[in-house]
Amino acid sequence: MALIVQKYGGTSVGSIERIRNVARRCLAAQREGNDVVVIVSAMSGETNRLLGLAHSVTPIPDAREMDAIAATGEQVCAALTALAIHNEGGRARSLLGHQIKVVTDDAFTKARIKTIDGSKIFATLKNGEIAVVAGFQGVDRDGNITTLGRGGSDTSAVAIAAAIKADACEIYTDVDGVYTTDPTICPSARKIDKISFEEMLELASLGAKVLQIRSVEIAMKYEVPVHVRSAFSDVPGTWVTNEDSSLEEVVVAGVAYEKNDARVHIVGIDDRPGVVADLFGQIAEKNISVDMIIQSATTESRANVTFTVPKTDLARAKPFLEEIGKALGAREVRYDEDVVKVSIVGLGMRSHAGVAAKAFRFLANEGINIQAISTSEIKISCLIAAKYTELAVRALHDGFGLHRAKGCTP
Amino acid sequence: MALIVQKYGGTSVGSIERIRNVARRCLAAQREGNDVVVIVSAMSGETNRLLGLAHSVTPIPDAREMDAIAATGEQVCAALTALAIHNEGGRARSLLGHQIKVVTDDAFTKARIKTIDGSKIFATLKNGEIAVVAGFQGVDRDGNITTLGRGGSDTSAVAIAAAIKADACEIYTDVDGVYTTDPTICPSARKIDKISFEEMLELASLGAKVLQIRSVEIAMKYEVPVHVRSAFSDVPGTWVTNEDSSLEEVVVAGVAYEKNDARVHIVGIDDRPGVVADLFGQIAEKNISVDMIIQSATTESRANVTFTVPKTDLARAKPFLEEIGKALGAREVRYDEDVVKVSIVGLGMRSHAGVAAKAFRFLANEGINIQAISTSEIKISCLIAAKYTELAVRALHDGFGLHRAKGCTP
Repeated sequence: MALIVQKYGGTSVGSIERIRNVARRCLAAQREGNDVVVIVSAMSGETNRLLGLAHSVTPIPDAREMDAIAATGEQVCAALTALAIHNEGGRARSLLGHQIKVVTDDAFTKARIKTIDGSKIFATLKNGEIAVVAGFQGVDRDGNITTLGRGGSDTSAVAIAAAIKADACEIYTDVDGVYTTDPTICPSARKIDKISFEEMLELASLGAKVLQIRSVEIAMKYEVPVHVRSAFSDVPGTWVTNEDSSLEEVVVAGVAYEKNDARVHIVGIDDRPGVVADLFGQIAEKNISVDMIIQSATTESRANVTFTVPKTDLARAKPFLEEIGKALGAREVRYDEDVVKVSIVGLGMRSHAGVAAKAFRFLANEGINIQAISTSEIKISCLIAAKYTELAVRALHDGFGLHRAKGCTP
Repeated sequence: MALIVQKYGGTSVGSIERIRNVARRCLAAQREGNDVVVIVSAMSGETNRLLGLAHSVTPIPDAREMDAIAATGEQVCAALTALAIHNEGGRARSLLGHQIKVVTDDAFTKARIKTIDGSKIFATLKNGEIAVVAGFQGVDRDGNITTLGRGGSDTSAVAIAAAIKADACEIYTDVDGVYTTDPTICPSARKIDKISFEEMLELASLGAKVLQIRSVEIAMKYEVPVHVRSAFSDVPGTWVTNEDSSLEEVVVAGVAYEKNDARVHIVGIDDRPGVVADLFGQIAEKNISVDMIIQSATTESRANVTFTVPKTDLARAKPFLEEIGKALGAREVRYDEDVVKVSIVGLGMRSHAGVAAKAFRFLANEGINIQAISTSEIKISCLIAAKYTELAVRALHDGFGLHRAKGCTP
């Protein structure tokens, strides 16, 4: 007998029929002798409908009121799921953020969880009921309703699993696991049976969308085994755990890509000590996050600096970058939004030399020019022209042998 | 400067445009120097949509989950109203049942308010904000969401007005006040300027639908002046207060009718002491409420008994009534659902003799046979054939001079 947290996303509860399917799955897990806690998102489309209502009233709605509105999506879905379990002959009770309580800070629309009280959940389980928890929501210390931001139900699920020390957190979604890369652009992509928290965190940060970054952070911190799997089949999905897959001789676990960054190229600034520090210090003051940075010296005490900023910040950053460029003696500031960041991630890189060189070679073989590089202990990212996205992903994926099936791990 | 509670029903907040209208009204009241607390219902149609969802999952949904679902209608509307006030340049904050707190018993779907804590409302007002409260909802002592039953937002409004000792509770609706009778069947019906709590309570109990009975009970108990008026005009409506309108020589304040009762006629039971007590004792045990009762002796120690029961209880009561009739020696049990209860209500009856006789005369003049009568200190109800409803209402209304305009009272 285990304590299992199951989380169902918006697509998995997207209709009454699908909610019935969720109810049957929960009951099956309970019948196997488990205590079952279910976290549900709003029915797909519902959050957008609710936020649309708020925006139809006023162009920039107050964040506190937005949260009071948005949280109703999960509230309704949790109660409907409890009813669906009743309808299948089971016992269940819905629990809301303010009932559990999931206490967060007061950063409305993007609140962070501070504490979770498991006692109401345990009382429900002890009563033989399935606890159906509304995801995505909490309350601040004053009892105001907060939400955790888009995809926050993953975070709710993993945080609740950590708080009640669940044996596993199953994330049910519309894909059947984490893939070595995006199957829609790389047909040879394979489902990963097992991946480490660190790798999953890098993949999520670098563009893989199957799990929210914060949920992976929490899972890693509290060592909650996460099982990402399909709500529509019984095939095992991907286990995210703290086991080190490098023991299995896997160098690269996955390939990710992200089109959210724009490249900034500042040409010919004064090449004297402190200039680059000045530049990035002033950018940071504007609260613009900079990712990949390349500095290259040219002739005659001039330097070129290249870096990336989020595309969403670019419009706001441009006038400021022009100004600072001028102040530092730059000849020109250029922008390029037609870029993509392609990344390989793998714990095995720590113990294998030459992975970066191999990656650059795979891209060069396809005639792809690398505009910037950033690396960490377990990932290598390359900025390239966006038109090469699919080509680069496939070259890296198959180059590192990810298209070949490995022995299945449990 | 006064402390005003305003309540807007589902039709008054039935669209975004109407919510904007509500926002402007609240702000106008605030600009006049008042502290304003607004109670809103769900947007019209929303509660039905939500309960429909619940019923599409399971035929008899659990009441606790129904309340969790239904309460979201008011939650969304309160937040939208706060946003609409922001959009007009005002300041406002939505407050939910569990935030205030409105503590109720745990009779889900028909909970009764036990206590209301005004401190969050006062803090909001002190901050210069309009407090927008979600009506219809509360929490029980365990923090479960409860609702007060259909029309419960009236009850919320009056109870909150009582709790914070508001100077007045304005009930905004889609009619412009309380009428002397239903204007749709009696063209000479007039808006009442002022009516007593007792009269309003009788009218609401006897079929007038403009105010919920429980809200009038609370208003009377805590002496909250209630102003029933239109959300779509500035015309003064009807004040419901504890002033005695009989000082103004008004004998009958209004005429109501109700088609919810069926007549039961038990013919020829034993006419001995205790038989009738037996009969109604056994009916009461089945939790069926009986209203008008007539007993008439016939020849040879037999008696006939006539009484009314709610139509909704009739199917369930029939087999039981047959059985008990047989046991008491009855020759026959007859039923008639084609009846209506027509009532006149007025504090003035207390000091005016002959009102009942006059009423019976007005009906007799129209050839209407009275099947049963029940009276209290301030009302007279007559059971008649349903086909005479309109005729009887008009005869009583105009007979008692309600069609004549009186001097306006403030």
